[in-house]
Amino acid sequence: MNSLLIRNVRTGEGTDCPLDVLVEDDRIVRIAPAIDAKDVSKVEDGAGMLLLPGLVEGHTHLDKTHWGMPWYRNAVAPRLIDRIENERHWRATSGHDAGAQSLALARAFLAAGTTRLRTHVDIDTDAGLRHLHGVLATREMLRGQMELQIVAFPQSGVLKRPGTDALLADALRAGADLLGGLDPCAIEGDAVAAVDLLFGLAEQYGCGLDIHLHERSTMGAYSLDLILQRTAALTMHGKVAISHGFCLGDLAERERDALLARMAELDVALVTTAPASIAVPSVAACRAAGVTVVGGNDGIRDTWTPYGTPDMLERAMLIGLRNDFRRDVDLEIALDCVTHSAARGCGFAGYGLSPGHRADLVLVDAQTPAEAVVARPVRKLVVAAGRIVARGGHLI
Amino acid sequence: MNSLLIRNVRTGEGTDCPLDVLVEDDRIVRIAPAIDAKDVSKVEDGAGMLLLPGLVEGHTHLDKTHWGMPWYRNAVAPRLIDRIENERHWRATSGHDAGAQSLALARAFLAAGTTRLRTHVDIDTDAGLRHLHGVLATREMLRGQMELQIVAFPQSGVLKRPGTDALLADALRAGADLLGGLDPCAIEGDAVAAVDLLFGLAEQYGCGLDIHLHERSTMGAYSLDLILQRTAALTMHGKVAISHGFCLGDLAERERDALLARMAELDVALVTTAPASIAVPSVAACRAAGVTVVGGNDGIRDTWTPYGTPDMLERAMLIGLRNDFRRDVDLEIALDCVTHSAARGCGFAGYGLSPGHRADLVLVDAQTPAEAVVARPVRKLVVAAGRIVARGGHLI
Repeated sequence: MNSLLIRNVRTGEGTDCPLDVLVEDDRIVRIAPAIDAKDVSKVEDGAGMLLLPGLVEGHTHLDKTHWGMPWYRNAVAPRLIDRIENERHWRATSGHDAGAQSLALARAFLAAGTTRLRTHVDIDTDAGLRHLHGVLATREMLRGQMELQIVAFPQSGVLKRPGTDALLADALRAGADLLGGLDPCAIEGDAVAAVDLLFGLAEQYGCGLDIHLHERSTMGAYSLDLILQRTAALTMHGKVAISHGFCLGDLAERERDALLARMAELDVALVTTAPASIAVPSVAACRAAGVTVVGGNDGIRDTWTPYGTPDMLERAMLIGLRNDFRRDVDLEIALDCVTHSAARGCGFAGYGLSPGHRADLVLVDAQTPAEAVVARPVRKLVVAAGRIVARGGHLI
Repeated sequence: MNSLLIRNVRTGEGTDCPLDVLVEDDRIVRIAPAIDAKDVSKVEDGAGMLLLPGLVEGHTHLDKTHWGMPWYRNAVAPRLIDRIENERHWRATSGHDAGAQSLALARAFLAAGTTRLRTHVDIDTDAGLRHLHGVLATREMLRGQMELQIVAFPQSGVLKRPGTDALLADALRAGADLLGGLDPCAIEGDAVAAVDLLFGLAEQYGCGLDIHLHERSTMGAYSLDLILQRTAALTMHGKVAISHGFCLGDLAERERDALLARMAELDVALVTTAPASIAVPSVAACRAAGVTVVGGNDGIRDTWTPYGTPDMLERAMLIGLRNDFRRDVDLEIALDCVTHSAARGCGFAGYGLSPGHRADLVLVDAQTPAEAVVARPVRKLVVAAGRIVARGGHLI
């Protein structure tokens, strides 16, 4: 049996006195002061650093990234549909390899301490399942280190391109974990038909749903209501997530709170990237209503956006900035969006710094969790499923 | 005469072919391909990296920072006045040293390529000129490397605390370059009296003004109008800046554009930190109206905010994110806010990558200026006034 003892770390909680962490195989066995090192195969000095659980990415698009490729000169027009069309065209002509690219980005995530990740993967009538096969290969490559959830995502719409529904079904049979969707009114055109189709597939394949909802204001509220109706009818409590949910950022508070209350009752998670340039759901309002909030980067360096780094502490910082979180207790909420709440919202099991849970550990040189969020210090040590996988920000 | 030749750099402009930069003493002498190295004292290999002009910080508070100090646990109530009161109390009881702290932060700015910086320095009846003396010492320490503009800033208001006006006058005589102010309605209470007092002092001491205007919507518009009236009456064209100007982010477009047109006519700059959690002036709208936009961090790790790094490329990224700048041409505008426009708006002379200008140079490993903004790569080399001052992000 492999065992690892990390000495002298702090968790930033309670008295914050130095603790040791004992890991056996892929599990945390004990967290306590001064654990006996006898019979331990490997001892690591934590040097009083701050211990965080492995970070969680709740929404990205590994298959689209240009990470590590030459700089992509972005001259795309600003509408959503322009970006969708531009990307499909670029993909078809650039020789972009979703396998190699998703692996490069996933490894960069792992080096920065992310051990669980949900990625949406484009499924459409041009690319078929090509992206999915690439990302499935990445998942296989990283098995035992990074837990990767795959959402079969009809980026170009499911109603407008006949045959997409069959491809989504193929994707779920081939290994995708969840079904995705987007904008029932604004992209699909027929909101009821689109939502019925998605929930029908989800019911048939017994999978969860994670739906991109960019629609704003009352249009988004209309779509969200349709989604919540079907979640209730199919008793899919805890199996549905809303990504973005921008409408929850610009509805009147009373309307917003009514929707949040229904989301909480149905255990529908809200996944936010907390973009700075558009109205977004208030993390505080969501949490006050009992809605689980998950943080995510969205795309990283792709044809949609030039921005992004595979660093969930940076995303926590951006969530904090967007929500004007200045106090330490609030910065801890931002961190929670990329740790515990994210794991809960995505359904990642065995998560956290407790005995019996998967030994996904991150050590950083920070005095408090709040400092870890604002300073985003280099990941001195990353342990994934009980194995040391990275030091000083680099995979070993 | 000291001379320095940096070989093989790119500027990201035009054909982007490799160029050499010849520096003599503190000035750029020539930028051209294959410059003869004969008689040059020092030759440096630019390795094909991207050359940027020294970065410019247009709005920070060097004197308040805890940079390098133990983590400050923030539990401050959210109102502006709570933050002002909390800070004054903390300062009085913590032994914070504005000299040591401002030097630590200024040096961190320099290591990250910032060679010109405008800082507001608190002047009030509790602290007197103590902060100013600390920052003046920092300016002296960094003379010949970093050009530091000091704004005498009545953070606690000028009307409510009798004697503040005399202290501001003392500060200007002691070496402050500009006069600051804040929120004529919301903080000062008597907007006309406050603005008259500030402009009176500015006229008396022949200095420029940089006024914090947090007031939103129509209240901010009222204060801004008073400021612009007096700018015109005293023909202070090009000598007044508005920091924050949040009202320009939430006024109706027609009202906003009328104010922007007057600002452009009077050459009043807009200084923005582009916060994500409040309505802010659109950089595109300001520039379209002809208003010079300057980027700044505001406070960095102080009692007001836990956030911030002394990295103007990171600030450019945050400006880009806030303004939804995704295309390369737009990211170049974000960069301009912390380079050329910032220098123009603050009145820093001899700025830019041209012969005769001060040799403030930054080399980064990026393919394009847009990539430099989103990736914020380590500053491989920083030259300040002709001397190499930092390598790999560290001062030498």
